[in-house]
Amino acid sequence: MKTFEHLFEPRAIAVVGVSDDSARPGTQALRALVKNGFQGRLFPVNPKYEAFDELPCFASVDAIPEAVDLVVIGVPAGGVLAVLESCARKKVGYAVILSGGFRESGPEGIERERRMLEIAQAAGIRLLGPNCLGFANIHAGVYAAFGSITRPPKLQRGSVSLVTQSGGFGYSIALACAEAGIGFRHVIATGNETDIDTIQLINALLDDDQTRSIIAYIEGTSDGRALLDVGRRALAAGKPLLLWKGGVTEQGAKAAESHTASMTGTYDFYRALFRQTGIVEIQELHEAVDYLLAFEGRRYPTGNGVAVMGVSGGSAIVFADAGERRGLHLCELAAQTQEALAGVVPHIGAVHNPIDLTAGYFSAANQAKLETAVRATLADPGVHALCVNLATTGQAGSLAAAQVLVRVAQESAKPIVVFSSTPVAENAQALAEFAKGAVPVLRSPSRAARAVATLMDYRRVRERLLASPAAADSGEAAAAATVQAGKALSEAESKAVLAGAGIPVSRDVMVPGPGMLAIEGLRLPLVVKVVSPDIPHKTEVGGVRLGIASQAALDEAIAEVLANARRHVPHARIEGALVSEMVQGGFELIAGVVNDEVFGPVVVVGAGGIYAEVLEDTASRIAPFDAATALDMLGELRCRPILDGVRGAPACDVSAIASALAALSRFAWAHRDQVREVDINPLFALPDGVVAADALVVPL
Amino acid sequence: MKTFEHLFEPRAIAVVGVSDDSARPGTQALRALVKNGFQGRLFPVNPKYEAFDELPCFASVDAIPEAVDLVVIGVPAGGVLAVLESCARKKVGYAVILSGGFRESGPEGIERERRMLEIAQAAGIRLLGPNCLGFANIHAGVYAAFGSITRPPKLQRGSVSLVTQSGGFGYSIALACAEAGIGFRHVIATGNETDIDTIQLINALLDDDQTRSIIAYIEGTSDGRALLDVGRRALAAGKPLLLWKGGVTEQGAKAAESHTASMTGTYDFYRALFRQTGIVEIQELHEAVDYLLAFEGRRYPTGNGVAVMGVSGGSAIVFADAGERRGLHLCELAAQTQEALAGVVPHIGAVHNPIDLTAGYFSAANQAKLETAVRATLADPGVHALCVNLATTGQAGSLAAAQVLVRVAQESAKPIVVFSSTPVAENAQALAEFAKGAVPVLRSPSRAARAVATLMDYRRVRERLLASPAAADSGEAAAAATVQAGKALSEAESKAVLAGAGIPVSRDVMVPGPGMLAIEGLRLPLVVKVVSPDIPHKTEVGGVRLGIASQAALDEAIAEVLANARRHVPHARIEGALVSEMVQGGFELIAGVVNDEVFGPVVVVGAGGIYAEVLEDTASRIAPFDAATALDMLGELRCRPILDGVRGAPACDVSAIASALAALSRFAWAHRDQVREVDINPLFALPDGVVAADALVVPL
Repeated sequence: MKTFEHLFEPRAIAVVGVSDDSARPGTQALRALVKNGFQGRLFPVNPKYEAFDELPCFASVDAIPEAVDLVVIGVPAGGVLAVLESCARKKVGYAVILSGGFRESGPEGIERERRMLEIAQAAGIRLLGPNCLGFANIHAGVYAAFGSITRPPKLQRGSVSLVTQSGGFGYSIALACAEAGIGFRHVIATGNETDIDTIQLINALLDDDQTRSIIAYIEGTSDGRALLDVGRRALAAGKPLLLWKGGVTEQGAKAAESHTASMTGTYDFYRALFRQTGIVEIQELHEAVDYLLAFEGRRYPTGNGVAVMGVSGGSAIVFADAGERRGLHLCELAAQTQEALAGVVPHIGAVHNPIDLTAGYFSAANQAKLETAVRATLADPGVHALCVNLATTGQAGSLAAAQVLVRVAQESAKPIVVFSSTPVAENAQALAEFAKGAVPVLRSPSRAARAVATLMDYRRVRERLLASPAAADSGEAAAAATVQAGKALSEAESKAVLAGAGIPVSRDVMVPGPGMLAIEGLRLPLVVKVVSPDIPHKTEVGGVRLGIASQAALDEAIAEVLANARRHVPHARIEGALVSEMVQGGFELIAGVVNDEVFGPVVVVGAGGIYAEVLEDTASRIAPFDAATALDMLGELRCRPILDGVRGAPACDVSAIASALAALSRFAWAHRDQVREVDINPLFALPDGVVAADALVVPL
Repeated sequence: MKTFEHLFEPRAIAVVGVSDDSARPGTQALRALVKNGFQGRLFPVNPKYEAFDELPCFASVDAIPEAVDLVVIGVPAGGVLAVLESCARKKVGYAVILSGGFRESGPEGIERERRMLEIAQAAGIRLLGPNCLGFANIHAGVYAAFGSITRPPKLQRGSVSLVTQSGGFGYSIALACAEAGIGFRHVIATGNETDIDTIQLINALLDDDQTRSIIAYIEGTSDGRALLDVGRRALAAGKPLLLWKGGVTEQGAKAAESHTASMTGTYDFYRALFRQTGIVEIQELHEAVDYLLAFEGRRYPTGNGVAVMGVSGGSAIVFADAGERRGLHLCELAAQTQEALAGVVPHIGAVHNPIDLTAGYFSAANQAKLETAVRATLADPGVHALCVNLATTGQAGSLAAAQVLVRVAQESAKPIVVFSSTPVAENAQALAEFAKGAVPVLRSPSRAARAVATLMDYRRVRERLLASPAAADSGEAAAAATVQAGKALSEAESKAVLAGAGIPVSRDVMVPGPGMLAIEGLRLPLVVKVVSPDIPHKTEVGGVRLGIASQAALDEAIAEVLANARRHVPHARIEGALVSEMVQGGFELIAGVVNDEVFGPVVVVGAGGIYAEVLEDTASRIAPFDAATALDMLGELRCRPILDGVRGAPACDVSAIASALAALSRFAWAHRDQVREVDINPLFALPDGVVAADALVVPL
């Protein structure tokens, strides 16, 4: 590990807070280091002892006569600051603070945490914690941890690293993975993240050659942009980043607030970020297990065509059900493929997809036939991935299948996944063989389908990002600051600003009164609205007239709305009348920008009209983004098919909508220090373009 | 087991098809019976042997000198009919046909299956299979089965029975349950279901005192009403029925068709049936495990208030996230409860919900405190269920918690569930203790939340059913047959029929020409439409006029639509003009009846207008049903909030909609032999009622 090198690979560790009470965090950490064979120097610290567990024991950190890279602090909260001061004197690089009693425990703890950071920063000490279970570098036997991390079962060495804001729950993820045979590199609980946080750690793990996949549990971050960056870095590096976001519902967020005072943020924006970065969201322990296993093979389907073969028709059906919901397709097999299969599949089986090998097919005697069947299927150009259903096949048959599948998998660029429900205890040999070849064995056909779909989705997002890595920031330099923070904009000014940013708007002309605007050159019909900062609801005072198609009607309408406004709101400041081209037909969308505390500017688009608030049919993306991303975003809307024309209506100009959203995202990013919010309602999607008919830009 | 008694508890079994080849199904079955200690008489049958595995062997079934209850047939398909004829001569009661090569394998197999049933029915033999893994009565050691059922691990005795149309996949469910410590009564694979089918078996299991919960995997049934009935029986009996429906997507159904030629049916209607019967749908193996464990306690939350306590804040957050999505609520705890908790929870913990007991709380030393905390929480009137998060707590702490929780659970009517991620191998003692008290231990907090929600939902549906068991069929006797099969109905006739059934319709008057209808007594405005069997698209020929509000306009409109129709479609048969009261305002729904091949009449309701086809926002229920069920159904619609009034619109009369849907369901049921389809489009939901503005009743 290049970053935080001497935190995770310390040459010498001091453990403060060892005691005869074996339940004390310090005691647990020291014993875990010894038990797991930590190779460096180890110094227990407690002024009461001369020696502890046969190691010389020191009165304080600065009493240690040798250099110390890392100090593990397990004393009660009240003693932490003094220990840290001693670390400062000793010029220690890193401290892991296991103790609780900080920010999470009230005003006194908040002050203690503030002081702690002050001392650390002054001395250049980097902190992990407080209020955490610590970390374990599984490869090097560095267990700077207490609690469940130090208890059996011992994690095996592997290439997955885990970072978690919640020690208790995060370690549950590690245990579930361990049970499925997944090995680990680093397991890190970050607790209060006073200094080192999850995102910094993920960044460091991306630079760690021994880490190939990263899984994280977070409740929130205050820096969504840093998460976006690390997500993109992970995708570019081809290291899958799996993330469980806690606190995604109202009640979950409330519980998180009382847990670590984390800012949980808007879940919709997290999900947008996941889609933009290929971060794989997980919401159940077995998803962590399945996807980590599947990624282990580093083979990704280039399309959605899947072939299913095996001995259980029911399993194939369950695979198909789950796969269809995630966009997989049980493709037709080519005639040539079916011919090849017919030579090795019993005649009471089936050579179309799903391929029925018939009961008992997996056996040592059938290995050559199975290999022919698998190779023929993988050679089919419509097949992008293969699922082999062993179902309840016993150990002998499973092992025979494993030998064939591992051999074929190593020569194939297409992923193979296996479903087996044979209990692990009855199937160890076969499972070991599969693991050797990185062929993932999933515990249900539906889980197998979702694993394949996850690989497919990951590749898609990755190809998009790698194809246009620079698109993200393209707008920034070009945009001039056309909005000033603190200076309110009228509707007309807002539309002018957006038009300048490349978003088509309906044409408006502001006039002081009738007889001052010629109708020539305007696209009829027109709308006339009174303009007054004192009249928010224009319709109610007769301040709006629609469908104006002649010069006479225009002048009459202008006079009328001004007169109505004066009569109903006598003291209103009236600035004039706004004459707008009326947009007709098309489909009403709403679009906008939220300049979010956590994520910065985010663009949101949704269905307009009566369904907007009821269906909450919206999609969002972190700004800036390109038109291809905008198309993806539109694809998430339930109302999306309407844009292609339903009930004989013409199709809307979807690429114009996408361009407008991308332009809006560039504007939002360029003006992130000036603009609080943009509301475009409605944004008309038309057969030949898109028009913002009404808009408001709200400055910061 | 009362029904099928001598199938599942045979006094004597003959096994046909034993051989030196230990892989033969017959050999496997015989050996499984011996190995599992079958207590009755056992007769191997094969003319080649005098004795088999030290048992006297017979040349044929009718050569056996004693009475035989059950014959297990494992010979190749071609020999099955002869064996069955021998069974007929022997007057055997039951046969299990393990052999494949019937309906699933082409025309020859179809004919063989037909003949097989003919022989069996003539002789009064009941058949299980063919093309099945057989069954095992775990309590009595009757293993009339081959393949994975007979292989290790041996299922433990318990109170769950499994019925599955797919042996391979169904047994995967059993294995997953067995791994989680769930014991079984019967495990039955039904194969082609030529005679005995899944529904008959579920019915029999409802009468089996040793079966307390039933789980089934089905791909389809041809008799949806039988499934409805058995679902209702199970609910009334308080025996949870869990069901995995395979083939629920387009591709899944296609795979099922090639698997067993099952009729997969319309998934929406299955889901309606599940909601009407409390059948618990499962779609993943761990759901089977979790819900069976949860039901074991037979305690159901009377509301959605849940308290969460434990040592892991992250776990509480994950519980809250998953719970909110399923309708659970982390309730506020009463002041009295919080006071009681404050006495036993460390001050750095939390006594509000979720309750933070602080790390390391679960221990032998803390048992009395934990008991106080648990009792105080369960005594809170807002708490309907409790989740205790042990998370990664080790064996000693888990066992301490188990002893307390089991003791309290036995005295509490409120369910307690536990989340533990400690590996089973490290936690056997604690898990045994929990199992003893039927306190379910779930493997993730989200799974714990869904288990609680499932218990809650089950109770709700059960209370509804028990409160109005007769509501289901109330309409049948009352309705007269007002529709004749084969005789088409016009729009006007259709509306009249529906009005007669109690569904409010807009008033229509058919007139031959202008000057023949006085406007008095009609609610204005009116709509005029030409009526002609030759003009399906009236608007396109100028055959519709809206918004008519005077006598003169009415007569002019009638004359105009007739003239337009004659001009545009010169040879059209024109029956006259239909004058209708125009419905204004309100919200457009669509409603209808599908007389389904599998389920009989089903009522469907959905959002109308442009979103109808795009959103597929529909809900359905099997007819007949009451207004309370109709309200549930409306509650499933995404557009449901619109009915309560949005954007200042008045609320619609939801109870009138429900009454109309219930009336429609009674009509559909009463006319199930006459009506193929009913389409009401639109059905206007108004502030003061509901009106079918257009309708068509399509006879069979």
